[in-house]
Amino acid sequence: MTDEARLPDPRLDADDRDVVLSSRVRLARNLSGQPFLNRASETQCANIVRTTQHVLLNASISEKIIWIDLDEINAHDRSLLVERHLISRNLAESTLHRGVAISGDEQLSVMVNEEDHLRIQVLRPGSNIDSAFQQVRSTDIQLEQQLDFAFSDRWGYLAVCPTNVGTGIRFSIMVHLPGLRITNELGKVRRAAKELHLAVRGYYGEGSESSGNIFQISNQVTLGSTEEDLRDIFTERIVPALLDYERSARQVLLKRNPTLLDDRVHRALNILRSARLLKVEEAMKLLSRVRLGVCLERLHVPLPQLDDLFIQIQPAHLRQHVNCALNAEEELEIRASLVREVLKDAD
Amino acid sequence: MTDEARLPDPRLDADDRDVVLSSRVRLARNLSGQPFLNRASETQCANIVRTTQHVLLNASISEKIIWIDLDEINAHDRSLLVERHLISRNLAESTLHRGVAISGDEQLSVMVNEEDHLRIQVLRPGSNIDSAFQQVRSTDIQLEQQLDFAFSDRWGYLAVCPTNVGTGIRFSIMVHLPGLRITNELGKVRRAAKELHLAVRGYYGEGSESSGNIFQISNQVTLGSTEEDLRDIFTERIVPALLDYERSARQVLLKRNPTLLDDRVHRALNILRSARLLKVEEAMKLLSRVRLGVCLERLHVPLPQLDDLFIQIQPAHLRQHVNCALNAEEELEIRASLVREVLKDAD
Repeated sequence: MTDEARLPDPRLDADDRDVVLSSRVRLARNLSGQPFLNRASETQCANIVRTTQHVLLNASISEKIIWIDLDEINAHDRSLLVERHLISRNLAESTLHRGVAISGDEQLSVMVNEEDHLRIQVLRPGSNIDSAFQQVRSTDIQLEQQLDFAFSDRWGYLAVCPTNVGTGIRFSIMVHLPGLRITNELGKVRRAAKELHLAVRGYYGEGSESSGNIFQISNQVTLGSTEEDLRDIFTERIVPALLDYERSARQVLLKRNPTLLDDRVHRALNILRSARLLKVEEAMKLLSRVRLGVCLERLHVPLPQLDDLFIQIQPAHLRQHVNCALNAEEELEIRASLVREVLKDAD
Repeated sequence: MTDEARLPDPRLDADDRDVVLSSRVRLARNLSGQPFLNRASETQCANIVRTTQHVLLNASISEKIIWIDLDEINAHDRSLLVERHLISRNLAESTLHRGVAISGDEQLSVMVNEEDHLRIQVLRPGSNIDSAFQQVRSTDIQLEQQLDFAFSDRWGYLAVCPTNVGTGIRFSIMVHLPGLRITNELGKVRRAAKELHLAVRGYYGEGSESSGNIFQISNQVTLGSTEEDLRDIFTERIVPALLDYERSARQVLLKRNPTLLDDRVHRALNILRSARLLKVEEAMKLLSRVRLGVCLERLHVPLPQLDDLFIQIQPAHLRQHVNCALNAEEELEIRASLVREVLKDAD
């Protein structure tokens, strides 16, 4: 996954990229006739992996699909997958037999034995819930031809957590909200999200803190509605409202005091371009300000390059970059050096 | 005073400029037969100004000497003189009749009706107590040919404050101590200074706070020793010891963690080169770090240019720079813009 050649970055043209970094749709599915993971034995877990691995590799759900046995790779490689949002932290740290199937373009991944037997997810750059939804759905249909999913006529698809019962679908977008943060309106957004039964999480999903003003916003309840209804509410009401809030906040910053805005974003860029030691949290915070400056056309850095930096500065990616173990001090140095190199032509 | 052409900057070649920004020697003198200022009437104060002004302008103590009547210029122009260290804040803010004679090179100034009737001071860039002492002394001799100074055979020259009685001389150096600050050794220096009866003051002398890690260090007691003894103690013991402390501290920083040092100094330079709003305190702090980097050859900025910036960023100089009144926000902008311009070719 770390070979640059395998990471085409089509994100520049994606929709609403000023606010939406990526869109994700995932389905929770469990195999009929197998116990849920909280009650499954080691043998049963291994069986689930074996069964699903075979199907995933042979169902033609995507070109160049690869299977990664997460028991067999080391913690560092698992962290790389987490940092790329291809598996969850929970799956990386789990002690169950587990694995993941990943498409060549890294947009489709199917986690096996995360919370449910299967978690089918499609990740798209920018605001692209619709196309992610289509791919998730076609993957689901293909898999269901070969796997028998646990389903109740009354409740719909069954899942370990009640919030996933029904359609088992979750829509989420990763959004960059520096405008709302600076204008102190995040609390308002959080309250609105709560009323709309939306979860607001950090850059690395469940249980992670927000970092760089990046938030993952997702629907929480899947019972009692069709997948299409849920999608429509998400894409037609929630996403536009959020975009509107954030963009308005940015315009407020721009109009209220453009010099203060320029001060903020130019300082951030130039600290990144000159630091010799950078902690990941500080780097995320500064990159967030630079991204705001780029979106408001005060700074000039290609957005895909910048968004890729948010991932490249993470610990496992840094280690991969230099291909050796790093102590704490070395990690700060390598991070600073990488950021300086990438941003050297920015202005 | 604000005409650039009148400010030749010979400081690059001056001694020990890595630590010593400037050296100052001053004498306190009072006219015999006139009351000390704390007991003088308005008429008597005016008489002292008239008498001394005449002598100062005619005694040939320096080429191109000018007289500034401090009652007649406005507060802004008085602040300019304070920022250039040509008069004290006390004199600027005093309500007595008062004035100052300043030489064309701005190295000699004679304040009239500060705490004493006369304060003769010579300011030299770098560590140059000896040559400043010579000029102060020759000025004193020339003035004494035309003025009768209050003198007691028992106590020596009389002065308002007992610490100035005797020789009335004070030696001081303006030193930049970022190394001792970062290694947390300033407390040690302060304790040593106290034992040696030295005063440690800020960038603008008595009552001012340290700013940019710049301190003014001066002898406090002038009674009971000759001027030469006091000078020898100052230049042969105190200044070398201080230089040694500071330089050792800088070498510790360099050896202990050169990357951390580079991180600090490069960040500072690049914040200065990119900020759009700069408070004077922040600017002083960042300039201090840049100066440390220059002295340790991690950054490249001409030292005289940098030292001049410490003065140019002060409020009255900024106002003079744009030649109009500035509100608080405008001051921050103009300061940032000036600093960016001056440092644009630094690296």
